[in-house]
Amino acid sequence: MPIINISIGRPEEAAHPDALKAALAEFFSTLIFVFAGEGSGMAFNKLTDNGSTTPSGLIAASLAHGFGLFVAVSVGANISGGHVNPAVTFGAFLGGNITLLRGILYWIGQLLGSTVACLLLKFATGDLAVPPFTLSSGEGVANALVLEIVMTFGLVYTVYATAIDPKKGSVGTIAPLAIGLIVAANILVGGAFDGASMNPAVSFGPALVSWSWSYQWVYWVGPLIGAGIAGLVYEFIFISRTHEQLPTTDY
Amino acid sequence: MPIINISIGRPEEAAHPDALKAALAEFFSTLIFVFAGEGSGMAFNKLTDNGSTTPSGLIAASLAHGFGLFVAVSVGANISGGHVNPAVTFGAFLGGNITLLRGILYWIGQLLGSTVACLLLKFATGDLAVPPFTLSSGEGVANALVLEIVMTFGLVYTVYATAIDPKKGSVGTIAPLAIGLIVAANILVGGAFDGASMNPAVSFGPALVSWSWSYQWVYWVGPLIGAGIAGLVYEFIFISRTHEQLPTTDY
Amino acid sequence: MPIINISIGRPEEAAHPDALKAALAEFFSTLIFVFAGEGSGMAFNKLTDNGSTTPSGLIAASLAHGFGLFVAVSVGANISGGHVNPAVTFGAFLGGNITLLRGILYWIGQLLGSTVACLLLKFATGDLAVPPFTLSSGEGVANALVLEIVMTFGLVYTVYATAIDPKKGSVGTIAPLAIGLIVAANILVGGAFDGASMNPAVSFGPALVSWSWSYQWVYWVGPLIGAGIAGLVYEFIFISRTHEQLPTTDY
Amino acid sequence: MPIINISIGRPEEAAHPDALKAALAEFFSTLIFVFAGEGSGMAFNKLTDNGSTTPSGLIAASLAHGFGLFVAVSVGANISGGHVNPAVTFGAFLGGNITLLRGILYWIGQLLGSTVACLLLKFATGDLAVPPFTLSSGEGVANALVLEIVMTFGLVYTVYATAIDPKKGSVGTIAPLAIGLIVAANILVGGAFDGASMNPAVSFGPALVSWSWSYQWVYWVGPLIGAGIAGLVYEFIFISRTHEQLPTTDY
Repeated sequence: MPIINISIGRPEEAAHPDALKAALAEFFSTLIFVFAGEGSGMAFNKLTDNGSTTPSGLIAASLAHGFGLFVAVSVGANISGGHVNPAVTFGAFLGGNITLLRGILYWIGQLLGSTVACLLLKFATGDLAVPPFTLSSGEGVANALVLEIVMTFGLVYTVYATAIDPKKGSVGTIAPLAIGLIVAANILVGGAFDGASMNPAVSFGPALVSWSWSYQWVYWVGPLIGAGIAGLVYEFIFISRTHEQLPTTDY
Repeated sequence: MPIINISIGRPEEAAHPDALKAALAEFFSTLIFVFAGEGSGMAFNKLTDNGSTTPSGLIAASLAHGFGLFVAVSVGANISGGHVNPAVTFGAFLGGNITLLRGILYWIGQLLGSTVACLLLKFATGDLAVPPFTLSSGEGVANALVLEIVMTFGLVYTVYATAIDPKKGSVGTIAPLAIGLIVAANILVGGAFDGASMNPAVSFGPALVSWSWSYQWVYWVGPLIGAGIAGLVYEFIFISRTHEQLPTTDY
Repeated sequence: MPIINISIGRPEEAAHPDALKAALAEFFSTLIFVFAGEGSGMAFNKLTDNGSTTPSGLIAASLAHGFGLFVAVSVGANISGGHVNPAVTFGAFLGGNITLLRGILYWIGQLLGSTVACLLLKFATGDLAVPPFTLSSGEGVANALVLEIVMTFGLVYTVYATAIDPKKGSVGTIAPLAIGLIVAANILVGGAFDGASMNPAVSFGPALVSWSWSYQWVYWVGPLIGAGIAGLVYEFIFISRTHEQLPTTDY
Repeated sequence: MPIINISIGRPEEAAHPDALKAALAEFFSTLIFVFAGEGSGMAFNKLTDNGSTTPSGLIAASLAHGFGLFVAVSVGANISGGHVNPAVTFGAFLGGNITLLRGILYWIGQLLGSTVACLLLKFATGDLAVPPFTLSSGEGVANALVLEIVMTFGLVYTVYATAIDPKKGSVGTIAPLAIGLIVAANILVGGAFDGASMNPAVSFGPALVSWSWSYQWVYWVGPLIGAGIAGLVYEFIFISRTHEQLPTTDY
């Protein structure tokens, strides 16, 4: 039974061109993803005059996020691994698949990418509001927290099984699609209750640009807990490799 | 012409770590799948104030189940084969592709996964009802039974042709997508008549959590018959290999 | 420049087990496809009380046909090539990629599969009408004929480029998805004008079961012309191989 | 650090059979894509009696363009690289991945393909209007320009990362799907504001056939700027190969 093997990384790693390129790739991937996902909600508000969510609106949000994330993971896969999500990076870190320093660079790239996407959306739509994530009526904080934990568990479990697991085989070819579509599927559930973030970067950008921080912690704590559980469960039950050589970049 | 070759499995097999890990993988895969599928119906009820199904609602259910099952099969493929469905396991058993003991472990994992998903949904949505499957008005029991048989035949035929058949070639790479999307396509048909289960685990969890067992047998008998026919037809017409060495884990 | 190389096939070929198995595979694939496609229209009629088509209804029809055809092609690919469509078989024949006798067996399997699907739908839905294809108001026969020709050209061009072309490379892995989704895309156009068949088997089954033959010829002549043009164009411009050895089963 | 390496191409190249076949492939791919994409808008107008766009209508447009482009790229991939878009060709040219002469042939094929698709749509729908792209109310020219730049940046970045990058690996297998679905995702955003073209050929055909050129320049300048930035950024940051041998046909 392997023990938890967390790696801090060497200080010089953060300045390594590959690590910086990877963080830049996370920036572009997250920008592309958030532009599509958050933008689809703004388009719905435009078309329905800020009407309340309908099944059609939920489908549009689901497809925009699912397709956008599929693409964002695909374009980043060979440079950074295509995390596009601080929770995924955290889950990869807990399972020993990325060092702390490299993970911090990824977080910076992801949060910046989301913020720039929201600023571009604000201008490209003629200064429309960039709506932050929030809880729908009847949904308590504890309920939303569990919702985010379960949904993000499914997402990071999918990342591990299809992209990180060395036994992934031909499933690896469709990994970006699986990662995108588990988010699409979960939005068809959680979108009606708490917006279905599963990704602190996705909720950070709109909160910053609209300066609206209510419940923001829910969208950080929930996804990080869900991702952490998934990373530990998958790594130590289903991979259970000997952690003698830390694989810092095998994903 | 091969004869039917059913294998019971050795008693010690059930305690084998690989068999237990595979059952655990079935548990997680079914949890992820049912959370998305059943949850999308609860989201529809929330958004429409329990309105009756519309074409948009059927599309949302179709995509949530189709995308969710695609992911659930993908993440389980390399550990358990990604059955995610007692009917698939039964069809694989009748064709001689899984032993009885291992199949029973899969069923336990699948039924538990569905139940836990429904309990999590109940809490995450602020105690909303978890609606069980039922027949729509005008749909008789015999009609629903045939509907489930035909739809599950298509699903298990797809599992055999794309994932079990040793001649599958590059089609194997997209097998999880085909398995997910045949369910998505069939829900666009059967969803309006009997909810389109094709999977006893999918109907078991909601029935247990809402304690509502009407017509439950239809969602067991129909899928098991359809899966059995598909398993026998595909195995003995299109694979027709010599069954001297039983392939217990080749899928 | 090669000349047209049409092969009749040897009489004994029709009784060859492989040819019969391939025709049976076409039967099952077409049954699965038509059950999803035609059934989704019947579900729409049930949910909207036979209301006229809406954008949501068109999306449902598009996804049911697109996903269903993707699966039907995938499951047949390694046995029959996954034509699932008399027009595809005709286009493959004109390009010299299937013999006449084998093609006739395919047609029989396809037409039978569609008919059995419609009979099963009739029973499974509690004896609802199985609506035949027809022209919407304002759409003339010549317009519909051109519509079917152009859409089927796109479909069969896709079959050639992704599945028949020996230079297809890794595109072959996603061929069934491309074949399914060009039909999904075209239904979002043609569905509003003539139902968007692109496939004589798809329009034959509903016509037979509902005994309604108006415009049936449009759904045969249009697709066969479009498929023929695509087969000749692709084969002789983009493949242009020497036709010395007729490839009867390379697809 | 490589310098920009633009290649004019030899005059005889334009008459080379391979270059002409590639341009013809661009013609057919663009025809198939625009027929689906523009046609879906005409179907929406037919079904809703020229009603204003709704979330369902946006989803239909998104899927028709996304699926259609996926197929158009797939069928062209092995012949021309499947650009299907003058902006993609321009981005490939700036990165040094196609010569000027070959690029001009591609543009001619693409613009002709779009025009023929619009003429066929006009006839096939019984002479309905072929609506040109335009800005929705509240959307200024500068906003639309930025919108097209950002969306096309995402598209061409995706083309580079999944199809042109020599390190693409198994991501190359799903490249056509990623290219199609980033357009689908972006239409769910931009469709509500400026129609979301990202492709001068897509806006040229409808403008020519309906002879309506307002804002046409926006749909050329925006996509070309976005594509140019993406091509330079990806080529010189993430590929950064030695440009000694110009790869004219490696994509």
